Amino acid sequence: MSVVLAEILRGGEIESRHLGAFVVADAAGKIVLSGGDPQRAIYPRSSIKALQALPLLVGGAADRFALTGAELALACASHCGEPVHAATAAAMLARAGRDAGCLECGTHWPSSDAAARALAEAGVRPSALHNNCSGKHAGFICTAVAGGHDPAGYVGPEHPTMRAVTEAVAAVTGTDLARQSPGVDGCSIPTYRVPLQALAAGFARFGTGEHLPSGFAEAASRLREAVAANPLMIAGVGRFDTVVTEALGSSAFVKLGAEGVYCGTLPALGLGFALKCDDGAPRAAEAATAALLRHYLGANPVLDRLAAPTLTNWNGIEVGSIRAKLV
Amino acid sequence: MSVVLAEILRGGEIESRHLGAFVVADAAGKIVLSGGDPQRAIYPRSSIKALQALPLLVGGAADRFALTGAELALACASHCGEPVHAATAAAMLARAGRDAGCLECGTHWPSSDAAARALAEAGVRPSALHNNCSGKHAGFICTAVAGGHDPAGYVGPEHPTMRAVTEAVAAVTGTDLARQSPGVDGCSIPTYRVPLQALAAGFARFGTGEHLPSGFAEAASRLREAVAANPLMIAGVGRFDTVVTEALGSSAFVKLGAEGVYCGTLPALGLGFALKCDDGAPRAAEAATAALLRHYLGANPVLDRLAAPTLTNWNGIEVGSIRAKLV
Repeated sequence: MSVVLAEILRGGEIESRHLGAFVVADAAGKIVLSGGDPQRAIYPRSSIKALQALPLLVGGAADRFALTGAELALACASHCGEPVHAATAAAMLARAGRDAGCLECGTHWPSSDAAARALAEAGVRPSALHNNCSGKHAGFICTAVAGGHDPAGYVGPEHPTMRAVTEAVAAVTGTDLARQSPGVDGCSIPTYRVPLQALAAGFARFGTGEHLPSGFAEAASRLREAVAANPLMIAGVGRFDTVVTEALGSSAFVKLGAEGVYCGTLPALGLGFALKCDDGAPRAAEAATAALLRHYLGANPVLDRLAAPTLTNWNGIEVGSIRAKLV
Repeated sequence: MSVVLAEILRGGEIESRHLGAFVVADAAGKIVLSGGDPQRAIYPRSSIKALQALPLLVGGAADRFALTGAELALACASHCGEPVHAATAAAMLARAGRDAGCLECGTHWPSSDAAARALAEAGVRPSALHNNCSGKHAGFICTAVAGGHDPAGYVGPEHPTMRAVTEAVAAVTGTDLARQSPGVDGCSIPTYRVPLQALAAGFARFGTGEHLPSGFAEAASRLREAVAANPLMIAGVGRFDTVVTEALGSSAFVKLGAEGVYCGTLPALGLGFALKCDDGAPRAAEAATAALLRHYLGANPVLDRLAAPTLTNWNGIEVGSIRAKLV
């Protein structure tokens, strides 16, 4: 069961259409708004990086290595490989006495075309530091080292660090993941299926600190504040998550995941949300997320633009638009 | 009304799903296979570039300027901006005594990441020759010049060249486009909505030469042979249309369009097809097209792979697959 999340218009006609499902819930798990099946289990992918970063703080690594706000924000990020992202990931690793050779996320060119071309223009090849997940992985390595574990193999589901990460996600979302056979994420860590309602409730807890294990509320608050203070770290120049964070500060936390997923929280309203575009399209997930934020936070020029982006062609001519439909 | 075109699997579970519609028809317009609404009118976008290239031959420009097979193929292409594509487009313009300054398609970096980074590494900025449509536009300019028209403004619906192009599409697909208010395509030419059945029948005619105006059958045959003999021109290294053409030669003609469209023909079987992925995803349109080709042409290692591509992550680990579902 799905609902229309967004339509793509050209010449005043609907050219394409994106279906999906979403849930807005409070920290007790009560659904306050939904479309489609709220119990649909999805792979949250990178949308839960902030939950996966909780052990970095709860386990003491963040304090032991005196990680900065920018570094904590990068641990929650899907960054686009700008120089500042790679440098910050390298600095995190250095604090734990490690380097990029410990990263097990794989290497890819920066997802920012401009950053990729700048690297190429400088005759530089990308490293694992440019992987969009390098901050999360640097955080895993810090967690492992602070916990007295060899980080080697940290991407495996049975590594002590990854077990702590999975247990944190399970605890925050109230979902039993221990017996689930996970998929493998783009960066090689396990990805477990979680129902939309559980994700939304988990992010309400992440936003409010309610219904969380000891130490998690403070850790969540520090991560949210770190991202709000360092919006460029969560994604990059012009990226949706960065633009939203620049506009809304600590009044919202939003994070994309691959295959059209968004999760986030509106702390002051006590709400969390989770959204999945059936076909995996970021453009629909983004527009729908902007519409959802606007529904709860009120009109805002940035959200207005992101909920209904204008489409232009290579000559800058306006050819159509994206129109969020979920609320 | 839509059907499932393809599913995206991860960890053995369906992570994402693509809906759409398709029609296979003969040159008389008889539907021999379909899913979803065969009368759905879609923007065919670049899937009909081969039809839009017909006036280049019918009007005499191709012969007057002695265009090569590679150049005719590029006139039908959505190329990815490799050096050979830009050079071939420049050569076409030179034959008509023009240059890249006449192109009205706009400029973008090559859609091939490797080609874009190679340009950047060489310190070169892209020109309109790198626009994926530069061959089509060079063909329009040749058509205009051979017809005695100033090519300036050729992208406008009322320019004599664009009128001939629109009339060719209308004639081949049997669709009245004269009173339709078109959308604007990515390269700034008008794009008209055509029902899937009419597109499929039109491509059956393009493949067989049946039910076509005088001169069109020979022009269609020359274009098909040109593409079959120059598969790299139609798209680029590793691209779906190029790989399919390399594998199947003149036994099939396939062409993608933006927003998840495919059109093509199986000349020996007398069939044409048109396919639209509702959400605009190329990955689903490609897998579904490969499955459709395999359905009619039989198993083939290339089609088997393209109909069910394996998905790997940044470490080369197999994480899932795409599974075409339409036949």
